[in-house]
Amino acid sequence: MPRNRQILLDNRPHGEASTTNFRLVTEDTPPLRDGQVLVRHHYLSLDPYMRMRMNDAKSYAAPQKLGEVMIGGTVGEVVESRNEKFKPGDKVVGMGGWQEFGVYDAGQPGALRKVDTTHVPLSHYLGAVGMPGVTAWYGLVKIIDPKPGQTIVVSAASGAVGSTVGVLAKARGCRAVGVAGGADKCRYVTHDLGFDAAVDYKQHQDAASLSRALKDACPDGVDGYFENVGGMVMDAVMLRMNAFARIALCGMISGYDGKPIPMSYPQLLLTNRMTVEGFIVSEHMDVWPEALKELGQLVAGGKLRPRESIARGLESAPEAFLGMLRGRNFGKQLVQLV
Amino acid sequence: MPRNRQILLDNRPHGEASTTNFRLVTEDTPPLRDGQVLVRHHYLSLDPYMRMRMNDAKSYAAPQKLGEVMIGGTVGEVVESRNEKFKPGDKVVGMGGWQEFGVYDAGQPGALRKVDTTHVPLSHYLGAVGMPGVTAWYGLVKIIDPKPGQTIVVSAASGAVGSTVGVLAKARGCRAVGVAGGADKCRYVTHDLGFDAAVDYKQHQDAASLSRALKDACPDGVDGYFENVGGMVMDAVMLRMNAFARIALCGMISGYDGKPIPMSYPQLLLTNRMTVEGFIVSEHMDVWPEALKELGQLVAGGKLRPRESIARGLESAPEAFLGMLRGRNFGKQLVQLV
Repeated sequence: MPRNRQILLDNRPHGEASTTNFRLVTEDTPPLRDGQVLVRHHYLSLDPYMRMRMNDAKSYAAPQKLGEVMIGGTVGEVVESRNEKFKPGDKVVGMGGWQEFGVYDAGQPGALRKVDTTHVPLSHYLGAVGMPGVTAWYGLVKIIDPKPGQTIVVSAASGAVGSTVGVLAKARGCRAVGVAGGADKCRYVTHDLGFDAAVDYKQHQDAASLSRALKDACPDGVDGYFENVGGMVMDAVMLRMNAFARIALCGMISGYDGKPIPMSYPQLLLTNRMTVEGFIVSEHMDVWPEALKELGQLVAGGKLRPRESIARGLESAPEAFLGMLRGRNFGKQLVQLV
Repeated sequence: MPRNRQILLDNRPHGEASTTNFRLVTEDTPPLRDGQVLVRHHYLSLDPYMRMRMNDAKSYAAPQKLGEVMIGGTVGEVVESRNEKFKPGDKVVGMGGWQEFGVYDAGQPGALRKVDTTHVPLSHYLGAVGMPGVTAWYGLVKIIDPKPGQTIVVSAASGAVGSTVGVLAKARGCRAVGVAGGADKCRYVTHDLGFDAAVDYKQHQDAASLSRALKDACPDGVDGYFENVGGMVMDAVMLRMNAFARIALCGMISGYDGKPIPMSYPQLLLTNRMTVEGFIVSEHMDVWPEALKELGQLVAGGKLRPRESIARGLESAPEAFLGMLRGRNFGKQLVQLV
């Protein structure tokens, strides 16, 4: 049995999360029971939603339990199988958590899925062709429901979700405008991803100033907004929104530490007859096949070139996670384990 | 030609509106052209949306023009007609504005509508069986879309819109809970209108306190919220909302004077996967016939007994309007002109 290093949630953050909230342990992987599969994880996904799970608060999901392996998406390779549908060498995606090996009850629906790495690199199944990609797809296609010629804005535009929103919007004949932090990310958004414009929120002290910059980037106003951030960025975009505009509310990372992030101008929702809808993609499993098909084609065809920030070794996960919450990643944040 | 007293918008308010924003004038009614109808107004409707129209700001409708008769719904009796579809004595509803007589281009769709006062008093066509009633119907039926057993909360519950929301929710097998200001209004909401519970917001200094009171009134949480007010009341209700709850955003009267009314906890929209939708009923004319039919039956059958606050004489309109904005009315605010 291989030795398995794991990272547990040791205690809950008060305010900002820190590395001291986590604990690294080592144990032997248990022997497999019938139907189970042992997977060596190649990559671990780090995503903003994990920060919310660390709080002991009412949310869309139960809190991450203390003393247990941190949850998270994983891709890897089957090393041992007592399930006839999987054999050693299969590339798979699952929710293995922050550990080097995972034991999966592979017979349970959705527990483990084989993936084809011929045209799509394995790591992208944690990003553009995985949960973040489907998140982008659901919010854009099912909530914003954009029409050709409309202007779609997305915050955290260089991230795994945001970058995909922009590419999907362009594929639908929309003007795609990204909000990102810093010149490098803005350049990536327009140059590499093909957004029509990008606005650097770090150049602005308040919503009014950011909103003026958005006016130049969105001369016809904003018809759809995919929100990952909340706070000042959301206020600024809302000031530019057109009648009947729609907001897909996917994340509000600026508030995950417990800081108040009031919406300054809710009356705009009324005067512009807007719709805001919060969602979590795991509650919409019915769209995954259709979404993954389009996303896989976009990546395989080179139209969606996701960028990745890769930390090395399980022990780097806490620091990489905290950096991502502060926007230090550039594209999809992963931890490479082999 | 009868002399016609009119109230014009003379100047725009800065902050709170006041009687000095209005001006009373008298003129002769003009001679009718072919197709026109002269109506003597019996009642003038006063509604919160008028306050927003007084601002020179981007909104869902063009601002009320300075020096022109204040807009508003009216019911009355035809006194002269050069339109074959109307004859003297017909009871009619229209948007005649703040004046004693109105000249209508009765051939234009929606300009003037005959009503039957056999079972429904004329004044109710400005309330429960008119624009406010259809507003309640649209927000509840088309946006909140309630299911039997769900809990529906409405703010300004004793008003023309709020009272109708509650009665419609009860007719659909829901628990109806009203938020209103003062013991009298709360008693009316539960005793006369049949709401299951009422909460007096005036007994609470902040959203946390009001939210605790709502917890008692809504032991199973809140599934749908019909919002007329905004600000503290909205924050308090949002703290009680269930997963997949829906908010119909009809008005935010607490902000019409330009006071900031931030939404304190927008992250609840995400964690509870809620939907918020702003609307204006005049953009949904297709539902009016169906809505008016149900509303007329509820009133005729005694299941909806709308309360009215009636001011007398056109000159009383400005004071009555300002009082309504401060919640001094009790039920539908009207001005009786004959």
